[in-house]
Amino acid sequence: MRTDPIITFTSDFGRREPYVGAVHGAILSVCPKARIVDISHEIPPHEILEGAFTLLGAYSCFPAHTVHLVVVDPSVGSKRRGIVVCTNRYRFVGPDNGIFSMIYQREEVGKVISIESEAYFRKPVSPTFHGRDIFGPVAAQLACGTDVSDFGPEVRDYQQIDLPSTHKTGETSLEGAILHIDRFGNAITSISPKDLRSLLPGETRPRSFAVGGQEITAHYRYYAEADRDEVFFLQGSSGYYEIAAQGKSAAFLLNLAVGARVELEVI
Amino acid sequence: MRTDPIITFTSDFGRREPYVGAVHGAILSVCPKARIVDISHEIPPHEILEGAFTLLGAYSCFPAHTVHLVVVDPSVGSKRRGIVVCTNRYRFVGPDNGIFSMIYQREEVGKVISIESEAYFRKPVSPTFHGRDIFGPVAAQLACGTDVSDFGPEVRDYQQIDLPSTHKTGETSLEGAILHIDRFGNAITSISPKDLRSLLPGETRPRSFAVGGQEITAHYRYYAEADRDEVFFLQGSSGYYEIAAQGKSAAFLLNLAVGARVELEVI
Amino acid sequence: MRTDPIITFTSDFGRREPYVGAVHGAILSVCPKARIVDISHEIPPHEILEGAFTLLGAYSCFPAHTVHLVVVDPSVGSKRRGIVVCTNRYRFVGPDNGIFSMIYQREEVGKVISIESEAYFRKPVSPTFHGRDIFGPVAAQLACGTDVSDFGPEVRDYQQIDLPSTHKTGETSLEGAILHIDRFGNAITSISPKDLRSLLPGETRPRSFAVGGQEITAHYRYYAEADRDEVFFLQGSSGYYEIAAQGKSAAFLLNLAVGARVELEVI
Repeated sequence: MRTDPIITFTSDFGRREPYVGAVHGAILSVCPKARIVDISHEIPPHEILEGAFTLLGAYSCFPAHTVHLVVVDPSVGSKRRGIVVCTNRYRFVGPDNGIFSMIYQREEVGKVISIESEAYFRKPVSPTFHGRDIFGPVAAQLACGTDVSDFGPEVRDYQQIDLPSTHKTGETSLEGAILHIDRFGNAITSISPKDLRSLLPGETRPRSFAVGGQEITAHYRYYAEADRDEVFFLQGSSGYYEIAAQGKSAAFLLNLAVGARVELEVI
Repeated sequence: MRTDPIITFTSDFGRREPYVGAVHGAILSVCPKARIVDISHEIPPHEILEGAFTLLGAYSCFPAHTVHLVVVDPSVGSKRRGIVVCTNRYRFVGPDNGIFSMIYQREEVGKVISIESEAYFRKPVSPTFHGRDIFGPVAAQLACGTDVSDFGPEVRDYQQIDLPSTHKTGETSLEGAILHIDRFGNAITSISPKDLRSLLPGETRPRSFAVGGQEITAHYRYYAEADRDEVFFLQGSSGYYEIAAQGKSAAFLLNLAVGARVELEVI
Repeated sequence: MRTDPIITFTSDFGRREPYVGAVHGAILSVCPKARIVDISHEIPPHEILEGAFTLLGAYSCFPAHTVHLVVVDPSVGSKRRGIVVCTNRYRFVGPDNGIFSMIYQREEVGKVISIESEAYFRKPVSPTFHGRDIFGPVAAQLACGTDVSDFGPEVRDYQQIDLPSTHKTGETSLEGAILHIDRFGNAITSISPKDLRSLLPGETRPRSFAVGGQEITAHYRYYAEADRDEVFFLQGSSGYYEIAAQGKSAAFLLNLAVGARVELEVI
């Protein structure tokens, strides 16, 4: 069965402005059969790390050959490059500002192409809206079958941003950071079960999290297992440990913010 | 004309998080030709009644065979069941927590199936994200033609929540409640013209609404019929009476909230 | 290649309510192959000028034959007409309340039709929801091939609203207004480079903007060219001059609001 190509679209454009619609139009003008799936356009303005994390939470659910378009681009118009990043299953299109750093960490990266072939751009190119005039049209061309090498030369020095890291602080402890607070007030940490296996010796399991001077020892599999108002941790759907509270915002109860250090003690 | 199957999607996931996009990806991985229509993802977290009401406002506008996916699921991961509810025109997929209570009230319910066949789940199933790993894939299978009986056994004891009820308080009066405050500040009540016909004797028509110690006697057919700032009632697009104010928020002017009791006096 | 018809949809319905989904359903019931692209549903309630501006920022990016549906309709249910506006490339559907005023200014307008043929309406027509019962179905019929003349008679007295105008205030100066504050805090003015060419003699270029007693002289091509916190102006992606601040909200820094007068001095 031949199916329509899929393009996902993530940005910090917001949904009130016409910008998201303009990019949809630019894509459909190039590749009318593309199916565009909006991941989120509520990335806080210019927050590259939030954009990277949001992409991480959804990209791997899509069928092979999906093109992932991500535009969080505070340096639009400057000399910063646009790139196409190829992995085994996907192509990623966006500015070369580190927005794909979590993809580099998770996936085996194949070709990375610097977008230079102006023939594929929407004209005239506005120096303030490359989403509409460059990245959208390039994603559409890719979705409709243009070979990635047609867009420009291969590059190897693509940008990465510092990601909140997880490291060992003792024989039975890891330190990480809060990556994200979600709409339910769950605080997603940078620590995953994989970190336990790779950083700590022997068979371990989590005993407690410490954050902001508080210790959290309750460990559940799902939210409703906890008592009302109880603060606990669990392994969230993105693979990371989360700090949560039943029926409440854990972030509010514990006064947590993105970037706060968390420590995991194991047994 | 063979057309693409339609899946509507309603949740409390919000549009900032990657969760909605992840479910779209999971659906398209199973049924690439599905058309997914987002009804709303701004249901307040865990508010089953709001989810039920939002579904009510849109489901019947869709073509026959549409699959309606609804995920407002505070008990995700627990023993609460997932269900598929069949009516004459539609199939509904979601947790068995009362989210379909208004459908049970409005539609003749056919088969209700408990979702148990793990073969149709996305693996591994996260205990905190059944929207992505169970409900989305099941909705996609249904849309692409899998028979509903394949997902599990029929059940009859599905859950219903208490809905704001409308009852007779005298020969010429009905009592109901405010179901919803919309973005324009209109307060949608639980009382419909059908209630007048079924609960009160003879031919009646509405005379006035009383709410929060205030009486509203102006009755119009559409908003612009009222004078500027005037408070009035009308029959809204969902079939219920609404309390509105021309160019203003009636909810703000009258200090109304969801659940407030309203009384209708007829003549 | 036969491609699916495209309908864009802009409204003040918000994304929390079921109203947007209901219109999608009504469209797909008439024209199941239509692709619906949501431009924005966050137009502030009843703000016709904001709706007109939002449409302006996206409509021209879409392929020829796209149908643009716009529902910002404070007078829904009254005698105000519904219209279809034809231009060379597009058809526009919505209330005749001035929502298409910026289209009339930018495009050569062909036929304008008053929507009167009730055969195309969804029944019963709610007097408070013409988006679902009239405009959506008409847009769907147009997208699926119904001739525009089938919907009603041609009219010439369609409504226009006063748009913030730009006029000459001296040999080297133009006065305009702030049209819109976007999510990044950029203040988009009503003045475009085209105004310089048409209103001022000779070859001129912008020297400075004055607004709220402040003068802005820095002029860049893109945002990242400015120093951190610097206030400047540039030509934005919609063609108008914008007042911006690097990494900050210019609207907040300068206390700017929609409608504020701005003066451009040229050299």
